[in-house]
Amino acid sequence: MDEKEIIPSTFIGIQGKDIISFGSGQPDLPPPSEVFSCLPTYNSFKYGPIAGQDNLRQALAEQNKGFDKDNFVITNGASEALDLTLRVIGKPGDKILIHEPYYYSYKPLIELNHLKPLIVKTNEGKIDVQDFEEKVHDASAVLINSPCNPTGRIQDIDTLKIIEKTTQDLKLPLISDEVYKDLIYERENYALSGPQVITVNSFSKTFSMCGFRVGYLFSNDLSIVEKVIGLKSHASMNTNILSQEMAFHATTIPRKIIEDQVAIWKKRRDVIYKGMLDLGLELWKPEGAFYVFPAIKNSMKFVRDIFEEYKVITYPGDWFGAPNRVRFSYALDIEKIEEGLERVGKYLKENV
Amino acid sequence: MDEKEIIPSTFIGIQGKDIISFGSGQPDLPPPSEVFSCLPTYNSFKYGPIAGQDNLRQALAEQNKGFDKDNFVITNGASEALDLTLRVIGKPGDKILIHEPYYYSYKPLIELNHLKPLIVKTNEGKIDVQDFEEKVHDASAVLINSPCNPTGRIQDIDTLKIIEKTTQDLKLPLISDEVYKDLIYERENYALSGPQVITVNSFSKTFSMCGFRVGYLFSNDLSIVEKVIGLKSHASMNTNILSQEMAFHATTIPRKIIEDQVAIWKKRRDVIYKGMLDLGLELWKPEGAFYVFPAIKNSMKFVRDIFEEYKVITYPGDWFGAPNRVRFSYALDIEKIEEGLERVGKYLKENV
Repeated sequence: MDEKEIIPSTFIGIQGKDIISFGSGQPDLPPPSEVFSCLPTYNSFKYGPIAGQDNLRQALAEQNKGFDKDNFVITNGASEALDLTLRVIGKPGDKILIHEPYYYSYKPLIELNHLKPLIVKTNEGKIDVQDFEEKVHDASAVLINSPCNPTGRIQDIDTLKIIEKTTQDLKLPLISDEVYKDLIYERENYALSGPQVITVNSFSKTFSMCGFRVGYLFSNDLSIVEKVIGLKSHASMNTNILSQEMAFHATTIPRKIIEDQVAIWKKRRDVIYKGMLDLGLELWKPEGAFYVFPAIKNSMKFVRDIFEEYKVITYPGDWFGAPNRVRFSYALDIEKIEEGLERVGKYLKENV
Repeated sequence: MDEKEIIPSTFIGIQGKDIISFGSGQPDLPPPSEVFSCLPTYNSFKYGPIAGQDNLRQALAEQNKGFDKDNFVITNGASEALDLTLRVIGKPGDKILIHEPYYYSYKPLIELNHLKPLIVKTNEGKIDVQDFEEKVHDASAVLINSPCNPTGRIQDIDTLKIIEKTTQDLKLPLISDEVYKDLIYERENYALSGPQVITVNSFSKTFSMCGFRVGYLFSNDLSIVEKVIGLKSHASMNTNILSQEMAFHATTIPRKIIEDQVAIWKKRRDVIYKGMLDLGLELWKPEGAFYVFPAIKNSMKFVRDIFEEYKVITYPGDWFGAPNRVRFSYALDIEKIEEGLERVGKYLKENV
C-alpha cells in the first residue's frame, strides 16, 4: 500500500477477526430496538416533504427550546446538512473559518464548493481566541465543531460565548456542528445560539444510525432554511422517508438509555487515555466524542505500517490538518482496545 | 395564492378526497411486495461503501451489458446522481447543453453549481439536430433526457446516434437521464453509450420507490466515477443502506411485472391523450414517461385558477421552459383521469 493512496474510504468495510479497527467514527453498539420497531408494518412509498417528515421535525422542535418544526430540515446525514449550508451561504471565493485540527471533510467540502478555508489555530485542541478574533474579519462564515472530531476536545464556554457575540456583531452565519453533543464526559453541551446560527446534527452517533443517513440542521434564520430547502428540492429531494420514521422512533426513547451509553463510552475513554499515557504518548484528554489524537511523527507511515504489520486501523493526522498526530476512534469494546494498545506498544518499541 | 408563489414544492403533500392531482411525477401504484420483504428481519446499521452496496451494484451490472459493478455509484435518487455529476464535470462558467422543454430541476441545478445552461430547441418535443450541432461546440457537457419529462416524448434513434457520435468526437461528457427507460410505449429504450457517457437512473419510477430515494449512475469513464465517489464521501456518504437492500430486492422481480405495469400506463396514456384531443387541446402524443404537455396559454394563471376553482393540481410550463404549456402527470387511475378531464373541460369552456 502506497502511503499516498491512503484516503478516508481506504479502510471502509475492511473487516476480519484479527483486525483491530480504531478507524471509522461509528458506534459499534447497535441502535435502540425502537429504531427497528416500525419496519415490519411499514408501507409508505411516496415522496415526502423536502424539509422532512412532520412528526420527526416536531419531535426535534420539542427537544430544542425556542424552535418550531419549520426551523428544521432533515438531511442525508450531517454531511448533507453541512454541504447544503455551505452551498447556500457562500459565493465562490468566500472564506469559511474553521479551527485546526478539523474534521476531514471540512476542507474538501469547502473547496469543492469553490470556497476557501480560513484556518484558526488551537492550543491543545482549544481555539486560540486571539487568532480567531483577528481572522474572523476576513470570514464570510464560521464553522465550529465542539465536541471536536478528531481531537475529542470541547471548547470552553467562555470561548463559545465570544464566538457567538463576535459573529453576531459581524452578522456572520455561524455553523455549529454538534453531532457529538450527546457524547460529553465533562459537562453538558453548550449549544451555540443566535439569529444566524445554523446547527448541524445527526442521529448517527447518539443512536448508532450511521448507515441510515439521518441528519438535520436548524436555524432561527428562516431565509437560510428556505434556501436549503430550495437547493435540496433539486439536489436530492426528501431524505429517505423510512429512515426518518426510524429516527422519529429514536426520539421516543428515554433519555436514560443515552446516559447509559455515555457511561460505556466514558469507561472506554479512560482505558485508552490511560493506556496511551502508559505507552509514553503525548495526548490531550478527550472530553467528548470517541477519539484520541496522540502525537505520532510521520503519521502516514505509521498508519500504513501498523495496518500492514499489526492489522490495526488508524487514521493519519494529515487528513485533519495535523500531520504529526494519529486519530484513534475508541468505538470498540474494552478488550479490543487493550489488544490494540498492546500492538501499538509493540510497534512503537520496535520503531523508536 | 399568488401566481408567483407557485413553485415545485407548493403542491407536495396536498391531499384531499375532492382533489384530482395531475401534479407530482410519481406512480400511484405501490412497489412490488418484494421491496418490503427484507424489512422485518433487517438489523444492519453501520456505514456502507460510498459507491453503494455490492449486491445492488452487482445486480445492476448484470442488467447492463458491458458494465462491471465498479462502474456504478448508488445515490440519493437520480437527483443526487445528476447533482454529483454536474459538480465533478464542470468548473464555474462552463456551459451544459440541455433541450427545452426540460425537467424543472435542470436549470436550477446547473445554475446553483455555477454553470450555465445552453439551450437547444425542440420541434414537437424532438431535438432540433441542426440547432444541437451548432450549439454543442460551446458546450462543456451535454445532458439528454429521453423519454422526456415533461413532454413524454422519446428522441429518435437517429438523433441519439448523432448525439453519441458528436459528443464522442468532441470528447464531451454526455449525461443521459434515463429514469423513464422502462416506461416506453412505442419501442424499446435506446440506451446512449460511449466512453464518456454517464447514465443516470432511478428505482423511483419503475418500482414506485420515490420516497426511498434510490438512484444510480454508471459510466465507462472511471475517472468520473472516482470523482463522484470522492465528492459523495464528503457530501452525503453512503446512500441509506436499508433502501439499497430494498432496491436490491426490486431487481429480483420478474420482468413480466414491469411489463404489466407498462400496459396500465399505456391505457391511461390513451385515455388522457384522446380526452385532451376531444377538449380541443393541441398536444404531442406521449411516447414514454407519464406526462402530457398540452398548449395552454398563460399557464401560471391556469394552474392557479384550476386548483382554486376546481381542485385540480397541474404544473405550469414555465418551470420547464415552456410558459404556454401545462404539464399533466397521468399517474392516477382512469376514473380520476376522466373526472379531472371533465373539470378541465368546464374550466376551458368558461374561460375561452
